Amino acid sequence: MLQISNRGQQMPASPIRKLVPYAEAAKKNGVKVYHLNIGQPDIETPPSILDAVRKADIPVLEYSHSAGNESYRKKLVSYYKSVGINVTPDQIIVTTGGSEAIMFGFFCCLNPGDEVIIPEPFYANYNGFAVEAGVKVVPITASIESGFALPPISEFEKVITPNTKAIIVCSPNNPTGYLYGREEMEALKTICLKHNLYLFSDEAYREFTYSGEFVSAMHLDGMEENVVLMDTISKRYSACGARLGAFVTKNKAVYDAAMKFAQARLSPPGLAQIMGEAAVDLPPSYFDSPKAEYIARRDLLVKRLNEMPGVFCPNPGGAFYAMAKLPIDDSDKFCQWLLESFSHNSQTVMLAPATGFYGTPGLGKNEVRLAYVLNLNDLSNAMDCLEKALEQYPGRVETTRRELAMSNKQ
Amino acid sequence: MLQISNRGQQMPASPIRKLVPYAEAAKKNGVKVYHLNIGQPDIETPPSILDAVRKADIPVLEYSHSAGNESYRKKLVSYYKSVGINVTPDQIIVTTGGSEAIMFGFFCCLNPGDEVIIPEPFYANYNGFAVEAGVKVVPITASIESGFALPPISEFEKVITPNTKAIIVCSPNNPTGYLYGREEMEALKTICLKHNLYLFSDEAYREFTYSGEFVSAMHLDGMEENVVLMDTISKRYSACGARLGAFVTKNKAVYDAAMKFAQARLSPPGLAQIMGEAAVDLPPSYFDSPKAEYIARRDLLVKRLNEMPGVFCPNPGGAFYAMAKLPIDDSDKFCQWLLESFSHNSQTVMLAPATGFYGTPGLGKNEVRLAYVLNLNDLSNAMDCLEKALEQYPGRVETTRRELAMSNKQ
Repeated sequence: MLQISNRGQQMPASPIRKLVPYAEAAKKNGVKVYHLNIGQPDIETPPSILDAVRKADIPVLEYSHSAGNESYRKKLVSYYKSVGINVTPDQIIVTTGGSEAIMFGFFCCLNPGDEVIIPEPFYANYNGFAVEAGVKVVPITASIESGFALPPISEFEKVITPNTKAIIVCSPNNPTGYLYGREEMEALKTICLKHNLYLFSDEAYREFTYSGEFVSAMHLDGMEENVVLMDTISKRYSACGARLGAFVTKNKAVYDAAMKFAQARLSPPGLAQIMGEAAVDLPPSYFDSPKAEYIARRDLLVKRLNEMPGVFCPNPGGAFYAMAKLPIDDSDKFCQWLLESFSHNSQTVMLAPATGFYGTPGLGKNEVRLAYVLNLNDLSNAMDCLEKALEQYPGRVETTRRELAMSNKQ
Repeated sequence: MLQISNRGQQMPASPIRKLVPYAEAAKKNGVKVYHLNIGQPDIETPPSILDAVRKADIPVLEYSHSAGNESYRKKLVSYYKSVGINVTPDQIIVTTGGSEAIMFGFFCCLNPGDEVIIPEPFYANYNGFAVEAGVKVVPITASIESGFALPPISEFEKVITPNTKAIIVCSPNNPTGYLYGREEMEALKTICLKHNLYLFSDEAYREFTYSGEFVSAMHLDGMEENVVLMDTISKRYSACGARLGAFVTKNKAVYDAAMKFAQARLSPPGLAQIMGEAAVDLPPSYFDSPKAEYIARRDLLVKRLNEMPGVFCPNPGGAFYAMAKLPIDDSDKFCQWLLESFSHNSQTVMLAPATGFYGTPGLGKNEVRLAYVLNLNDLSNAMDCLEKALEQYPGRVETTRRELAMSNKQ
């Protein structure tokens, strides 16, 4: 009997997509489903960047340079300069989405058995790349009560072992929306320099910062050897399907190793690189409108959530996600119930159970992630559904006064 | 001091691309370089498939299904049917190039320490994916004298151990151009069934079969659980830069495992899927012209090579590669010398040293791979260069009569 690999068995199923069959069944039954479960923005992809592809003269769609077209890397240099990041074209490898940049980081910097510390809740697919690379994820818990601020250095120190090789940070954060402040980024620097760790910085949501200053890991002086920036145009230009990202580092040994991985897969997607190049020419004002839209959505979502009895949602500083604590027994059951057994005016809402974003078993059972990727009207309807659902859900658990006080709700 | 990973150190540099700096220097010195070193066809990408992208209405370029758009997978089913392969849409995962399909196979089917047997010379990047997955490549040697026919079953039996989990076959072959016949494919089936092995079948060059019948691993009855097909549109439609491939298997456990890897990286490139879908609608006659062109090129190349004193080139049955045995001391030195120290009428030729295609150290030192991806006129000029170069090369080694007789040149 042929066996699949251990990795194939251990590989986690996507916590975001596993409810999809229930959503499809609900739709077949005539129920409208508001998708707040996945970070697929509804913002229009800038027509000019698609036009660049339409207008391109492509007699032969050839392999590009394995690091990506030089012309695109030069453009990226100017883009990064505009956000205070000074790099050269030969410090950038254009990747197939941010996903491949994360994978290159795991494979180039970590050995099987090595450990990577990630503040939880975290982007669930880090688990998948860790399984691929045979790396152990060591979570340290950020609490919803503190709005998911970086846990204190002492928490990192507690879990650092000789096998610890890297920390992953994502700011603004997916799934929490939390924006790490300068002090927190400096704390990460201190830990990394003290313990000789890589800092993998996932900055997919850089442009969507609503309160406070965005601090890139690349802004940290003295961290040139430690920082690997993992980037993508997916959210920046609402171009998730392009699959175009970047692996950026000033550490030459890491860069050279990543180039060998890049050569093995030949080149990143060609048409997407034309889009990416055109995107750098968008005026800086391009971001004003999506940003204003996301702020309005966030404000509506957070207000509505916190008005619901027993619900607490800290105000996210960036990205387009919010985590909410709900008065429920089990977020996996609740999210499935929303699709399988509930509707309000023939509508329901699809959420992501938070359990998939925690590395520590048992955490996130009364939390969900909401992606505010729908317009204000749909979002409002989705909140109506959630409000009604929480009233009807058989697994509702009354929050004690003490818990409510702890969640600092005012 | 931060260290890169063992994998990062062991990862081989691309044997095809490592000579690039020498080619760039030659061009700067005004020398025209004929690139026979890389499988980048000069055949026009069908304009209709690029037009499909141009005409597509894309308000938001969203993530596709992790397995690829269902509409594209349905189209692929009809394409596969046209080449005698019967599969369903849920046996196909659309991948980022054939590269990702190979990677999924390694990660889903093989554990670190497992062994995969590959007839050598073989596509060099299999080594890279093996390092990524921690898998050991076990080569068995196909000889240029036999035209690179499949080594006898007894050679496989000699190297099979309890750790052997798969065989990789590529037909028509890169780098040899060899087309495996039905008997050879049946021999592979016998070995795989007897020893419970996966058969990874890389069929990137399926359409370019010049003599004899193309036999897919998917045509082998009783091998449904064993076969993983790794496919790509790169060569089929001269669309290497699209980065679009397919992972196809009837083994449900393998498929389900691969889907988890596919979900971790979210989706394959979106614009390329539009191209791929349009490509299935090209008339079957589309292949007539590129095929006729490749045959003419092959005929010219093989004739010219075999006319050169001391050179032997078996006639390839497919793909667009040929391997030639040259009267030289060291193919790496020779290929570098061609770029660094030689020119003929201000022209030279870039070849791929065969050493990078062998797993056994020391083999391929007097062989090169030539990709016939240039038009007949350029190809003829390139052969003029090679002929002159072999006369002038200081490391020329006279082939003995016995060797020439063995190479069965007639």
